[in-house]
Amino acid sequence: MPIRATVWNEFQHERDNATVRAIYPDGIHRTIAAALSADLAIEAATATLDEPEHGLSVERLAETDVLLWWGHKAHAAVDDAVVERVAQRVFEGMGLIVLHSGHFSKIFKRLMGAPCALRWREAGERERLWVINRSHPIVAGIGDCIELPNSEMYGEPFLVPEPLETVFISWYQGGEVFRSGLTYQRGAGRLFYFAPGHETYPIYHDAKIQRVLQNAVHWAHNPAKPWTDVSTAPNVPITAAREPLEQRGGSLHAPGEEGFR
Amino acid sequence: MPIRATVWNEFQHERDNATVRAIYPDGIHRTIAAALSADLAIEAATATLDEPEHGLSVERLAETDVLLWWGHKAHAAVDDAVVERVAQRVFEGMGLIVLHSGHFSKIFKRLMGAPCALRWREAGERERLWVINRSHPIVAGIGDCIELPNSEMYGEPFLVPEPLETVFISWYQGGEVFRSGLTYQRGAGRLFYFAPGHETYPIYHDAKIQRVLQNAVHWAHNPAKPWTDVSTAPNVPITAAREPLEQRGGSLHAPGEEGFR
Amino acid sequence: MPIRATVWNEFQHERDNATVRAIYPDGIHRTIAAALSADLAIEAATATLDEPEHGLSVERLAETDVLLWWGHKAHAAVDDAVVERVAQRVFEGMGLIVLHSGHFSKIFKRLMGAPCALRWREAGERERLWVINRSHPIVAGIGDCIELPNSEMYGEPFLVPEPLETVFISWYQGGEVFRSGLTYQRGAGRLFYFAPGHETYPIYHDAKIQRVLQNAVHWAHNPAKPWTDVSTAPNVPITAAREPLEQRGGSLHAPGEEGFR
Amino acid sequence: MPIRATVWNEFQHERDNATVRAIYPDGIHRTIAAALSADLAIEAATATLDEPEHGLSVERLAETDVLLWWGHKAHAAVDDAVVERVAQRVFEGMGLIVLHSGHFSKIFKRLMGAPCALRWREAGERERLWVINRSHPIVAGIGDCIELPNSEMYGEPFLVPEPLETVFISWYQGGEVFRSGLTYQRGAGRLFYFAPGHETYPIYHDAKIQRVLQNAVHWAHNPAKPWTDVSTAPNVPITAAREPLEQRGGSLHAPGEEGFR
Repeated sequence: MPIRATVWNEFQHERDNATVRAIYPDGIHRTIAAALSADLAIEAATATLDEPEHGLSVERLAETDVLLWWGHKAHAAVDDAVVERVAQRVFEGMGLIVLHSGHFSKIFKRLMGAPCALRWREAGERERLWVINRSHPIVAGIGDCIELPNSEMYGEPFLVPEPLETVFISWYQGGEVFRSGLTYQRGAGRLFYFAPGHETYPIYHDAKIQRVLQNAVHWAHNPAKPWTDVSTAPNVPITAAREPLEQRGGSLHAPGEEGFR
Repeated sequence: MPIRATVWNEFQHERDNATVRAIYPDGIHRTIAAALSADLAIEAATATLDEPEHGLSVERLAETDVLLWWGHKAHAAVDDAVVERVAQRVFEGMGLIVLHSGHFSKIFKRLMGAPCALRWREAGERERLWVINRSHPIVAGIGDCIELPNSEMYGEPFLVPEPLETVFISWYQGGEVFRSGLTYQRGAGRLFYFAPGHETYPIYHDAKIQRVLQNAVHWAHNPAKPWTDVSTAPNVPITAAREPLEQRGGSLHAPGEEGFR
Repeated sequence: MPIRATVWNEFQHERDNATVRAIYPDGIHRTIAAALSADLAIEAATATLDEPEHGLSVERLAETDVLLWWGHKAHAAVDDAVVERVAQRVFEGMGLIVLHSGHFSKIFKRLMGAPCALRWREAGERERLWVINRSHPIVAGIGDCIELPNSEMYGEPFLVPEPLETVFISWYQGGEVFRSGLTYQRGAGRLFYFAPGHETYPIYHDAKIQRVLQNAVHWAHNPAKPWTDVSTAPNVPITAAREPLEQRGGSLHAPGEEGFR
Repeated sequence: MPIRATVWNEFQHERDNATVRAIYPDGIHRTIAAALSADLAIEAATATLDEPEHGLSVERLAETDVLLWWGHKAHAAVDDAVVERVAQRVFEGMGLIVLHSGHFSKIFKRLMGAPCALRWREAGERERLWVINRSHPIVAGIGDCIELPNSEMYGEPFLVPEPLETVFISWYQGGEVFRSGLTYQRGAGRLFYFAPGHETYPIYHDAKIQRVLQNAVHWAHNPAKPWTDVSTAPNVPITAAREPLEQRGGSLHAPGEEGFR
């Protein structure tokens, strides 16, 4: 059974800005979805901000194994309830790949618990993403590095928690560096942040970038059954204790009563 | 100059429940503040839910080096704006020590980006907190372990991100285990989660528990000047680049323009 | 193509000690290999201390995707050159699963860079291994925990580096806890330490233990081509620099000369 | 009481090579020791390869709180017994700061359990070390970055375990990046790897580099009493168990007998 990927895009710049439209006439989401579908083990669909529930209904998320997220100028327009729904699905085991300016998306900030700030410059300068562990599944087939002739600079300090693994570090022509590929685990879900993808350059048309996205979908896919009660805190009554116990001391709760949240 | 600690408590059970009141007649916050003040390098104040702005005004937080947080049944009553204010101060460098049922507080969930769920049982059973690295500053003077004759069981799985360091792991009489002391970094701020502290047992009167709290205040204190713009993403204009650059490619932004958030 | 697993055992106790022989008449390695082979995606072979080169020749290791290691009283008899050979294969991408008393094996200490010490007691007491992330591939099919009616106690502090992931934490009847399943990455190789397996109890006959070993072989397998020059430090001559450079300042080396090691 | 730092240097290039001698006429160790001593809270001594026991006798190490290590062409000349002695002291709580080409020293490889390989180029190119967390104690007073007009390039992939914290990432003129400041914990000891320091450039005369070294000595200093038995695995007899136990099942050991190592 193929991995079900959903590519989410706010889909604004492609309609507002001629430069972006020329590069992504059908939207960034369609370019990425087409690239993913070139891998026959992936089945890619899309969703955008303007659809009902931003295209991320309960049903759609239940049928998504890995979600990719591209957003930039409309972060604030994303409904908090949808953000919380996506977070819960990540906790249950859905993979999440956050792209580029998604560093400031509600969902990324929600899952990092950190400022997610960085420095930036839109000068079309050269970026070179160095591979840190060339045997990591996310970089299969990539070689030593990825060179982008034109890129937006994202510079350290990048205000995120220490990652599980640093997958890429970027060099910029203007003199900065950036941890441009980072992995995290949240509940049962795997998360990959991947920095390149500024909309005024044809970055998602690059073959190596497309390969990283395919690899990352495989990496982020958790085949385990969704852990649907991952966020609940069940009481374990004395009678269900693994070792014999007798009640002692004072108590706030009547037997079997639910805890406070 | 002493470290300025503020002990925050929702201060509800001590007024509602005779068992709790008998143990903490002046409130858990006062017991903890007195314990901290026994360390002359610490200057401890208190704040509670019912005070204006929950006692956590901008001014008060600006004068707090390390905040301790105890909450249980009134998590939902904490104002979101105050939670965000506390999170921002942590990012700037304020230390945060989250206690016991604070695992489900808004501020802990905000900073973990994870469900923070666990299993629990209120049976007054024995808990033994094993020290993992006996040379860690948080456990100075503690020895091998801390024994609590009566405790609430908190059991794994504890749904938090992998910590920077596992400081304590607890054994429970009823057969469970729990990572009861964990450290994290968020922005410039250090965070310590410390599990024991159920309000129906006199845990904060225990000398070893008090010593851990004192140690943790020292550990969480960041003497660096607050990083007040930690959450902003400044543009680095081409003219300020460290290496000579010329503008290339398309652009979304006029020169010097602010980015989207 | 199946994953090629090699189960290494010092194979001493099974010949010296009647208790152990009764449980593992053909040796621990054969019991484990049979359990792995029940998974048709795994092809398991064995190797033992008394074979030439301990059964771990260059050729054999080149044909091993994942190595499992069980040793106890004969750690010192393992040849340093073979240890180094195994370490190099791990760096190149071979998976390694270190079992039980292997915490004090040369290969585990070599890869941890830490004392690897712990406390222990052979009392046949009850052990319960709690699953920390039930959606981790190593615990697929295991449920909440594994109960062992008789086990050797291994107690904290366990002197190893902070792991990538804590997979299991054990509860012991006698009052201790232990991080009994830990993951690490070394070069291109994945490493899993799994604590249970004392030779006087039939632990490797337990169905859940066998399932963990199968899962761990899948998890530790890195399908990438071996990174054979992972330990070398190549010079990047000026002429091969990605950006134009001119030699400046003093130099120790003639152009193209090899570095010191 | 001041922190007792010992600066170890192989002290070979300064005697063999006129370029290096001109920069460090008394040896790199004396330049660093003088820089440390400018901080009145540090008392710095030196030790070199040619001294008996390389200047690292049991007594000297017992009186060292933090050891700094500079070596390059004579790694192989360092006695294995001294390396093991230093490793044991780190496990007991001594801080260790490994400098530059020390990435291939026996002691660093011993403590990393990894290849410690990297790419390199001696072209005198520009290096810029970016600060990742500007509130980390190791970078106090440093600002955004350190610029070195001439440096040896060290490039990723750097084959070390994921660090506790990434403190610096370097940008190089020739197009590479490097994680140039990394922290680790081994037993009770803290370890900082700091990449700059090629001997043909006056890097240890740079005021910011000196400040980082002073800061790192403070950071690496563990005031806890040395954990002298950190590497032993004591038996916990049944009579000393924290919970009542009775012997069950088979046993390899007579009561109270020492375990195998």
